[in-house]
Order: sequence, then C-alpha cells, then structure tokens
Amino acid sequence: MRDVAIIGAGETKYGEHWDKSLRDLAVEAGLKALEDAGLGAEDIQAIFGGNMSAGSFVGQDHVGALIADFAGLAEVRVPAIRIESACASGAAALHAGYMAVASGLYDIVLVGGVEKMTDLPGDMVTDILAGAADREWEVFFGATFPALGAMMARRYMYEYGLTREQMALLPVIAHKHGAMNPDAHFQREITVEQVLNAPMVADPLTIMNCSPVSDGGAAVVLASADIARKYTDSPIKISASTAANDYISIHARESLTRSPSTIEAARKAYEMAKKEPKDIDLVEIHDAFSIIALLGIEDLGFAKKGEGIKLAEEGQLYYDGDLPYNVSGGLKAKGHPVGATGVGQVVEIVKQLRNEAGKRQVPDARVGLAHNVGGTMTSSIVHILEVM
Amino acid sequence: MRDVAIIGAGETKYGEHWDKSLRDLAVEAGLKALEDAGLGAEDIQAIFGGNMSAGSFVGQDHVGALIADFAGLAEVRVPAIRIESACASGAAALHAGYMAVASGLYDIVLVGGVEKMTDLPGDMVTDILAGAADREWEVFFGATFPALGAMMARRYMYEYGLTREQMALLPVIAHKHGAMNPDAHFQREITVEQVLNAPMVADPLTIMNCSPVSDGGAAVVLASADIARKYTDSPIKISASTAANDYISIHARESLTRSPSTIEAARKAYEMAKKEPKDIDLVEIHDAFSIIALLGIEDLGFAKKGEGIKLAEEGQLYYDGDLPYNVSGGLKAKGHPVGATGVGQVVEIVKQLRNEAGKRQVPDARVGLAHNVGGTMTSSIVHILEVM
Repeated sequence: MRDVAIIGAGETKYGEHWDKSLRDLAVEAGLKALEDAGLGAEDIQAIFGGNMSAGSFVGQDHVGALIADFAGLAEVRVPAIRIESACASGAAALHAGYMAVASGLYDIVLVGGVEKMTDLPGDMVTDILAGAADREWEVFFGATFPALGAMMARRYMYEYGLTREQMALLPVIAHKHGAMNPDAHFQREITVEQVLNAPMVADPLTIMNCSPVSDGGAAVVLASADIARKYTDSPIKISASTAANDYISIHARESLTRSPSTIEAARKAYEMAKKEPKDIDLVEIHDAFSIIALLGIEDLGFAKKGEGIKLAEEGQLYYDGDLPYNVSGGLKAKGHPVGATGVGQVVEIVKQLRNEAGKRQVPDARVGLAHNVGGTMTSSIVHILEVM
Repeated sequence: MRDVAIIGAGETKYGEHWDKSLRDLAVEAGLKALEDAGLGAEDIQAIFGGNMSAGSFVGQDHVGALIADFAGLAEVRVPAIRIESACASGAAALHAGYMAVASGLYDIVLVGGVEKMTDLPGDMVTDILAGAADREWEVFFGATFPALGAMMARRYMYEYGLTREQMALLPVIAHKHGAMNPDAHFQREITVEQVLNAPMVADPLTIMNCSPVSDGGAAVVLASADIARKYTDSPIKISASTAANDYISIHARESLTRSPSTIEAARKAYEMAKKEPKDIDLVEIHDAFSIIALLGIEDLGFAKKGEGIKLAEEGQLYYDGDLPYNVSGGLKAKGHPVGATGVGQVVEIVKQLRNEAGKRQVPDARVGLAHNVGGTMTSSIVHILEVM
C-alpha cells in the first residue's frame, strides 16, 4: 500500500451564502485546493466528493458529475464520484480518495465536500437531516437529531453527574477559536451564561449546544507520497484513514454514553499510524452537539469515561493548551455544512501542521487527528495527519 | 496494486416490491452474496453501497449505515459508505470497493447496490430521477430524462438515418433475454410492433424504448485475488475498473450522438485489462433508453459510429450470437432499480462466467464487460471481468 500525502487544501468561508449555489461553493473550494497545490485541471485524475443531501436540499443528485463539469474538468473526462455517510460524508470521501491513491489506480486526486443548506426553511432542514437517523424506527416516531442528542446528554448527566454549566464550556472554547478564524460561520466569543440562557432546542441542549446550519465547501488534493514533494515543500502525510459503524438507532445500543464506532475507528487509526493519544498535537472533534464532542474526547482516548470535561475545565482544550481542540472553531463556531465538514476539519489540520493558521496557530504542531461522525455517532471516521 | 476477484454474488428479483422496504432489498441481496461466498458477517471488513436517491425516494440518507446495521454487521463495527453517481451508482460502488481491496487496506469487502423507487407516484419519480441532470440548467426549463434521451435519439436519426423500427430491435432483444431470467422485472417477449405502438413518452421514444421504474438490490463480495480460491473454486477476476465523466448537460456537448465518457472509460478499461473489443464474450450495456444502448455499443468499440444497429439486425446480440448483449434482460427487461443496476450487471456476468445462467447461458463465456452510465451518459463506468 502506497503512502498518501495532502499537497493542497482550500475551503470557502462557512456561513449563509445566499448568493452562492451548491456548485459555486464546491468549485470555489476545489479551485482553491488546486491553486494551493499549484496544479491545473489536467493534473487531476479523479474526484471524490462528500455530500449528504443535495438531492433533498436543492433537488440535485449526480453531484460529483455536476462539480467536475463546473470546475472545468469535463473536457478532460475526469471521473467524479459522490460519497455519502450523512454528516461524515466529507471524511468518507477522504477515505475513498485515500484508497484511490494508496491502491495505485490514481496518482493525484481531488477530495471535496460541500453542502448547500440554507435555501430551505428550518423545519425542512431538520427533517432532511433526520434522514441520517433511522427514518422508519426513529424519525417516524417524532425524533429529530437534536432530540436524539439530548437523550444522549441526559443519560450522560445521569451516569456521570455532568452539569449543563460544565457542558457549556465546549461551545465556549469552540467560539473562542472561531473568533480567530476568518472563514468561520461565527467569529465571536460567547460565555457560559449565553449558552445556558439561549433558547432551548431539546433539553438539556440549548441552541448554543448545537452546531448551526451552514453552507460551505472544502477540498484537499491527495498525491502518492513519493511524488508529493514535486508539488509542495510541505506535504502532509495521511498516517491513518479508518472507519467503523454502529447501530443506526440509539435504542439498539448497549449504552448512550460511549460510541463503539469511534472507539473502533480510533483503535484502528492509532494502530495504522503507530501513534497513541499522547502523540496527538491537535484534534478536530465532531461537535455537532456538545455531548457528541464530549463522547468523542473520551472515546478517542484523550480522557477516561466520565472525565472528558475536566480537560475543558483545566483549560487544556484551548489552542495553546495541552490538547488543542477544534481550533478551527469546530462544527459549533466554524459551522457545519454537513458534506463539507469532514474535509474542512482536515483543511484546518493541514494549515496548522504547515504553521499557516495565523492567530490560532497551535505551537509546534506536527501530528493532528480529525474525527468526523455521521448520525448519532453511527458512522465514525478518523484520520491522523502528520508532517512528512 | 493487488488483483481483485469476485468471490460471491447475489441479487433480489427486480420489480415492484410493495411488500419490501429499501433495507429489506439491500439486506436480501447482501446476504445472498455472502451465502454464495460462504462467508459470515464477521468476515466482511467494509461495505460500499451504491444508491442514487434514497433521501428523496424514502427520506433516508446514511444508507450505508442503515444497511450494515440491518445486515447484522453493527456489532462487528464494519464501516459502510454509500456511493452515488446517479444511475451509475452501482458501478461507482464497485469502483470504490475495487480500490479498497486493491489498496491493501481491506482484504474482503461487500459491494452492494439498492433502490426502492415504487413507493411514490410516477411524476415524483420522474422529478427525482431528473436530479441526475443539471437541475438549474436542464430540469428547471422542463427537461425530463426521457426528453433528454429523445433529443439524443432524434439527432442520431437525423445524422445516421436510424429508424424507429431499427431502434425497436434493442428492447425486443432485451425482452427475449429477460424472458429467460427468473429475476427479471419483465419476463416476457415483445415484438417490434409492440414497441412502435406503445404509448409515446418523448418522441421518438415509446415506453417500450424506456427502462422501467423498479425496486431491487444486488451485491458482490470482493477479495484480494491471492486469497480468493480459499472461498470459491470459481473466482472471477476484475481485470479493469475505470470511469470517466462528461459535461452534465447535453447542451454543453459537441455531439449528441457519441459519448466521450464511455469512449474514455472503455479506452482505459481495454488498456488496463489488456483486451480488445473482440476479446469480449458478452456485454451488459446501459440501456436506460434504446438510444443510450446504441451509443454504448458503438462507443465501447463494438461497431463503427452509425453502424451499431447492424449488430441487432444481423442477430449478433442474442445470447447465442457473436456479441451476447444484455443477456440478463438489461435495464429494459430485467429492470432498472437505479442504484442496484451497475452491481446487477456484474452479478449477471459472474453467473455467465461461472456457467450458472441456465437457459440464457452464453456458450464458452470467459470475458465479460459491464457498462453503467449516470445521467445522459455524463458518468460512464466500465468493468471487465474474466475467469481466473
């Protein structure tokens, strides 16, 4: 199996892009990644594009083909395939792109992610996103995604004594970082009080415990590691690309407070990269809801079960702490255009490992981990990246 | 790059399955493929599932996760990712599964395809399928998929003098074969007159020139070729897995009567498999509309441009002819559950190469080619399979 490196990265600003369509966002991100790699359309051999629900959001399937065309790649016949794993679609596309290059079938590929979510009213968006849960056995009976997240949070509070005040620390940290990211949806700091007093979405989750509905695109260019230095002086190696799944419905699981898919994807990732949690210099963790992030922190091996929030309380999760967490702003503050999110996490890590992250630069970052989740931690995908 | 073989294959009957849901169909096909390979859930390391529009058809995204769960694979944490390339989603999933095994990251994977289309009224189905074209620049202005196909057919008739009577031969051949396939949606022969006198969908295409709306699932198990004989005495090698794309809109193309994506995918496939068109013993060609099949026959290299229909007139396309064509019944008679189709084509070729195709068995079949198309030949994916 060949080693694979990232030789270019780019993304749009995340937010409400009422003046940009799905294709605009995807092409903008893709061209930024190509430009960053110093490549032209003729250099790309395949595209793998993460997208959750363009069929429902904007009536468009065949998204890979659409984007390849509008990126100017139709004339060179570049194959383009869409990858979907709900909110983990971006990381799933990266997993596919990784295998494409590792296999030797392609030498240079573009991996993108995009979602255009703000063209519909909120109730329709909520219903579409619920398609990541079991439509017939969860959603039909009234569950929305925040409701499922809220059940996980309530159970965690019951089992481990977590308070709403404690849980509020995670969005506060995310917003602290987002305030330093010019591409973030929300570039302002918030307080614990603001989280607690925000409108309740599904008890105990206020709207400040929930990631926003965002538009956005992100892209990276992958190349076989042995040719990566032809294109960049700072290639970033993909040391691990792993995935695992759980029952889609939370009622089918043994526990609501641990994620076997994250645990298994992380186990495989550390083994593949020959790393341990202590080797990781920064993490991008899937914080669609604060509770998901807390489970992520623990199940990725950064804290014992029930003790993840201590890292927040001790200040370790800030960009200059021991475990810089969601330095991009995370899903909460950077935003969550679902198909783009997993690729965007990796764009952030690439910037950090190249020492190009500006105000929020993590000192001496050499190894980063990205954790992207689909559904209620049903699908978990982990990537470990490091300086080559 | 490791060689990859198919060690198991299975599919549901195609048709109107009002008593089976999306998950039922996917699981039935997957378990049949596993049983055929003599494997259990614990042997599968990853799933790649082709599906076009479950989000729109049945409100369900995250389809990979759903299917892995209901196939009993959640407990073993098998990663499952959905692949979409409109009506080529099945072949795109096989392309991804091929790379997964070729890369060495996984040794044994399940590739599936499924679509559940008949739960909605026809006009809604037509609109959802139009999502494979450009929603903003084709569909918005009134184009349906049959309308786009009809324009291609009219132009071909103008350029090459094709008649409706000639074009009718293709569905007649498909139905002749479908009548011998117990899993086909339509198991009855039809005549040229029936094609010509059937209700007009989009002139010159009658409903008998159009593939039906079908429910169905199909699956194959892939393994590294070096371990394939541990599981089966008749592994089938994937000698080529290639893809190429074109402009998504037909108005952007130089010609309506040739498909550059099919030409390029075929060129790469023959090179990869070290084969020529004359080496192919049977073909499954994407006949969503008769005109698409005709372009496929020519652009895959089996006839000169404008002369493809001669093969039909000379009787070469029957299962006992020189170029057995859509011996399964093709999309027209076997059916077209869009996400399943590309995998189902390969299931047919596997059966033929194993000499297990019953009444419709092609004599001495050793090499088969599958051609799966998304949109108006926007995405083309070609697989060449051969006896190991």
